[in-house]
Amino acid sequence: MNKHKVFFQPGDILVEATDGSTLKEAMNDAGLEFDFLCGGRGTCGKCRVKITKGLTTPVTREQEMLQAKELDEGIRLACLTRVSNDMTVELPNRKELKHNILITSDERVFEIDPHLHKIFIEVAKPSRENHSSHWRRLKESIVQQGYKDSELESTISILRQMPDVMRSANNQITAVIYRNEISGMEQQDTTKTMLGMAFDIGTTTIVGYLLDLYTGKELSVVSTLNPQTAYGADVISRLNFASHEENGLIKLQGAVVEAINELVTEAVQKASVTRDQIYGISIAANTCMHHIFLGINPQSIAVSPYVPVLSEPLVLNASELKISINQAGKVFILPNIAGFVGADTVAVLLATELERSEDIKLVIDIGTNGEIALGSREKIFACSAAAGPAFEGAQISGGMRGAVGAIDHVYYRDKLEYSVIGEGKPLGVCGSALLDAVAGLLELGILNKRGKILAFDQLTNPAAQRFKQNLIQYEGQGAFLLAEASLTGNGRPIMITQSDIRELQMAKGAIAAGVRVLMETYGIQVQDIKEVLLAGAFGNYLNPHSACVIGLIPPELESKIKMIGNAAGTGAKLALLSSSEFRRAKIIAEGVKFVELGSYPRFNNIFGESTYFNIK
Amino acid sequence: MNKHKVFFQPGDILVEATDGSTLKEAMNDAGLEFDFLCGGRGTCGKCRVKITKGLTTPVTREQEMLQAKELDEGIRLACLTRVSNDMTVELPNRKELKHNILITSDERVFEIDPHLHKIFIEVAKPSRENHSSHWRRLKESIVQQGYKDSELESTISILRQMPDVMRSANNQITAVIYRNEISGMEQQDTTKTMLGMAFDIGTTTIVGYLLDLYTGKELSVVSTLNPQTAYGADVISRLNFASHEENGLIKLQGAVVEAINELVTEAVQKASVTRDQIYGISIAANTCMHHIFLGINPQSIAVSPYVPVLSEPLVLNASELKISINQAGKVFILPNIAGFVGADTVAVLLATELERSEDIKLVIDIGTNGEIALGSREKIFACSAAAGPAFEGAQISGGMRGAVGAIDHVYYRDKLEYSVIGEGKPLGVCGSALLDAVAGLLELGILNKRGKILAFDQLTNPAAQRFKQNLIQYEGQGAFLLAEASLTGNGRPIMITQSDIRELQMAKGAIAAGVRVLMETYGIQVQDIKEVLLAGAFGNYLNPHSACVIGLIPPELESKIKMIGNAAGTGAKLALLSSSEFRRAKIIAEGVKFVELGSYPRFNNIFGESTYFNIK
Repeated sequence: MNKHKVFFQPGDILVEATDGSTLKEAMNDAGLEFDFLCGGRGTCGKCRVKITKGLTTPVTREQEMLQAKELDEGIRLACLTRVSNDMTVELPNRKELKHNILITSDERVFEIDPHLHKIFIEVAKPSRENHSSHWRRLKESIVQQGYKDSELESTISILRQMPDVMRSANNQITAVIYRNEISGMEQQDTTKTMLGMAFDIGTTTIVGYLLDLYTGKELSVVSTLNPQTAYGADVISRLNFASHEENGLIKLQGAVVEAINELVTEAVQKASVTRDQIYGISIAANTCMHHIFLGINPQSIAVSPYVPVLSEPLVLNASELKISINQAGKVFILPNIAGFVGADTVAVLLATELERSEDIKLVIDIGTNGEIALGSREKIFACSAAAGPAFEGAQISGGMRGAVGAIDHVYYRDKLEYSVIGEGKPLGVCGSALLDAVAGLLELGILNKRGKILAFDQLTNPAAQRFKQNLIQYEGQGAFLLAEASLTGNGRPIMITQSDIRELQMAKGAIAAGVRVLMETYGIQVQDIKEVLLAGAFGNYLNPHSACVIGLIPPELESKIKMIGNAAGTGAKLALLSSSEFRRAKIIAEGVKFVELGSYPRFNNIFGESTYFNIK
Repeated sequence: MNKHKVFFQPGDILVEATDGSTLKEAMNDAGLEFDFLCGGRGTCGKCRVKITKGLTTPVTREQEMLQAKELDEGIRLACLTRVSNDMTVELPNRKELKHNILITSDERVFEIDPHLHKIFIEVAKPSRENHSSHWRRLKESIVQQGYKDSELESTISILRQMPDVMRSANNQITAVIYRNEISGMEQQDTTKTMLGMAFDIGTTTIVGYLLDLYTGKELSVVSTLNPQTAYGADVISRLNFASHEENGLIKLQGAVVEAINELVTEAVQKASVTRDQIYGISIAANTCMHHIFLGINPQSIAVSPYVPVLSEPLVLNASELKISINQAGKVFILPNIAGFVGADTVAVLLATELERSEDIKLVIDIGTNGEIALGSREKIFACSAAAGPAFEGAQISGGMRGAVGAIDHVYYRDKLEYSVIGEGKPLGVCGSALLDAVAGLLELGILNKRGKILAFDQLTNPAAQRFKQNLIQYEGQGAFLLAEASLTGNGRPIMITQSDIRELQMAKGAIAAGVRVLMETYGIQVQDIKEVLLAGAFGNYLNPHSACVIGLIPPELESKIKMIGNAAGTGAKLALLSSSEFRRAKIIAEGVKFVELGSYPRFNNIFGESTYFNIK
């Protein structure tokens, strides 16, 4: 069928619309929810849009509903106008727009509800009749736009700018308003632009998303290695550095702030915009990264009972944190739940809407610490499982991060096959391949329940026969060869050793024990869980079947697994685009019941049992 | 009659009480108003005090009203206990104290209502049962003292201090609370101390008063020349310097902030306290000094229609303004009325309670600009009269400030007599002496209505005869000799020249014209004014009779003149000690109707007429 391009502004949203379909349908396709008060029957006249390219002849009903002047200007009703050629359509009042944001395949609809507002005003000039102060005359103009005078507040920084800005702009000003505070004053009309960035500050990686705060459109995505890695690879070493090294906290904070400022630079360059157009950033991070970013000593997180200094959400001026965006800019920091269940988990829960779900779902964000949440709208429990770095390739003989050169998946076919990230010669194995390799060994009967690699003559499964040459000895113990030295990029063989398997058992045991404790605490059986949502990079890379075979995830749930991408990033975006979502994050953080695994009765036994494999 | 010393705590207030008088009477003498619910009849038992030195035997009624344990602890009823020896008396709950503050002879009663509150709390230690964040546990302790959890706010600075303070203080903390914000956190119990300083920043002089914020007691008074004088003697030259010199504003602001910090140092040394015990400062200043102190460009004040950037009151963190007091400290800045009717005038009005007065009163603060307010509780008008520097001795041949060596008063007795500040040889005349000298010349008929010094042979008043030798010629015009060269400290004669008289005519004309315009605007006659309140240093130094003779103040009002001292300083104290007085300042500033003299119809004629003398 014939298709046409429809380009919506503001927001630069392009969709293809079938010939003869209505603009209303195209708006739906574009994810632009609009209040069609009469249900799209052309009777309320509220869906006025302005067609600036590809104007159509108005239908009779439009001629009745609209004035001649409006028709001449290109005003049409979206519900009645049919697409017959490429069009550019200008949408009215942004407040009425709703926006869809994608979580992998699922659509998560929310309403854009900006934290900050911009209004263009013309401030009365001082005269003998009106000799009130600059600030009073400015307030009077703002009050005319529906704000309450008594509630409007200024800051010393704005007052200091006021004389110059008002003079230079000839009293024509755009006021940036956060709640009741005038947070910015700009010359002339800048109301059309308001950008923001959502950040997910991980221990290893920082990701930033540049968004249009009016439309929700993503303009660019940037990421970098967290430069704090230079001071320690994991959370615990950062905690120690911050607490015990001289100026440790200041160094770590400086490093992350600098990284964020560099990501801002990169993101605005990619999108051909300026950093001054950015008025808000949101932050999702684990509790330790959160504290360090704020310059708060995280020492109390390091020792039992692992309490954070702050769990509440926070809004700060970007300038207070030396974040280089517009000087009116605000930083929206998502709340934490506990010392090891941080704002990143809250962001994941915000994205997954667990607290609104009728079904019980299990949400796992696997990293060095696996944050696990189990719940529904009835209640939510969460814990942090100290998985250690095995899933990230550390402490594994040939382990590496999921970077170029890493074997990322392993297949037991006629012979052993594998895929390599970047498709060159392999340099090592990353976590997902470790899962595949061990899962295959279990299915072939090469590994026993306790994780021991059996000798070739102990194997009973005929299918195991063809991997005879992969079964080798290494440092006096059994090992399984994935790639011999001649095939690798660095001339060293890549194998899975007995101790690699022990490391994996510890890691998967920690997660599995956490899941079990949460189920016990909730009082449910595994079959009560209707969905397993895997968040985070590793969660999106692993083979769900392998995860279930090794018992990282209960095997009964294999068909219920869904990957949800960087849900922490998605949550950060939601919190940035919508002040009601940001408020919801607080409710979520307060509502989640934190379960401290270390003090759970019989936890050591549960963990020990969970390190075993369940051989069917 | 036999007297005893009664020492009240907290506040270290010492009074002498007549033997046999009640503690209630001693408290009244000390300015400590207390709610004696039953009127002091010993029936309500609410006036419990604790006598820690000089305990008296309880009277029968006290034995009935108080428990044995209380009696043993030294608890007595203030209305029944009679002073029979020196005593130290501990007063209960500070919230019930009221305080009298003196305006010269008048008592102005107000209730101490601190802006900041201190509470001592013991924060629960984190445990496996209570692993909520430091901030949450801190809030819970504060909520137990009656605050609402949902309203309590923190700052990033407090959050950063929290881990260290809580650890060092073993979770025993004094929280400093401003409105709903935790503005400070201190180790152990510091609730007994809370000091503040009230500042009156004048163009020439800065005065600071160190006060106990619980009792209102003044601990020390300090003052210094405003160091901005180096950049210009008057408001106009400061305005120009701030607007046109490179970094002019920053230099001026830096100078005043440094001066204030030095005054804080001096004040705390005098009172043997520390700057860390100061939690609040209040600021009264004219609009230009106000803007410069805040780092706001005052340029708009310099040009018609002379609007300020800000007239609202403001509360800032002391640290934002680099004021070195306790890091939790706040700065309370009184509001302005107009470009030349500033926060100092608001402070004067706060002290004089003009807006509560049934009678119409005239309030004048004479300086280079004379701020004049006329009103009652019905309405208040205010204006600023550009008197110029004559009253401060500038532009006068032998003029000088009211400093050591200045002739401050002149007496026409058998011969001419004068008094000198510091009592040495005179160096010049200050404004008050200029008034006396000219008033005498008018009364003697030596000056005519137009201000011309008559020749000796034109004089008709026999009393003028004895001053023949004082009538001299100077630069071709008549002059009046006050002290010949041989009697002065610098070997130069001190005289009043014809041009000095012209300068004085301009100055008094400006004030008198302002008064006349306000009366016209209000629609009253001079006899409707029931009181004239003279504020400021000059206002307190001048001879009211002289001021009336020369027509600076309408002669009909001579008997109604009252000097009220540095009422701006008094207003600053009120605003510091009482948050309700600070709020009242806003209402006053908003309620006063500013009259711009320059645009008043026929103002030039009124001013011209006012430069004449009214010879009876």
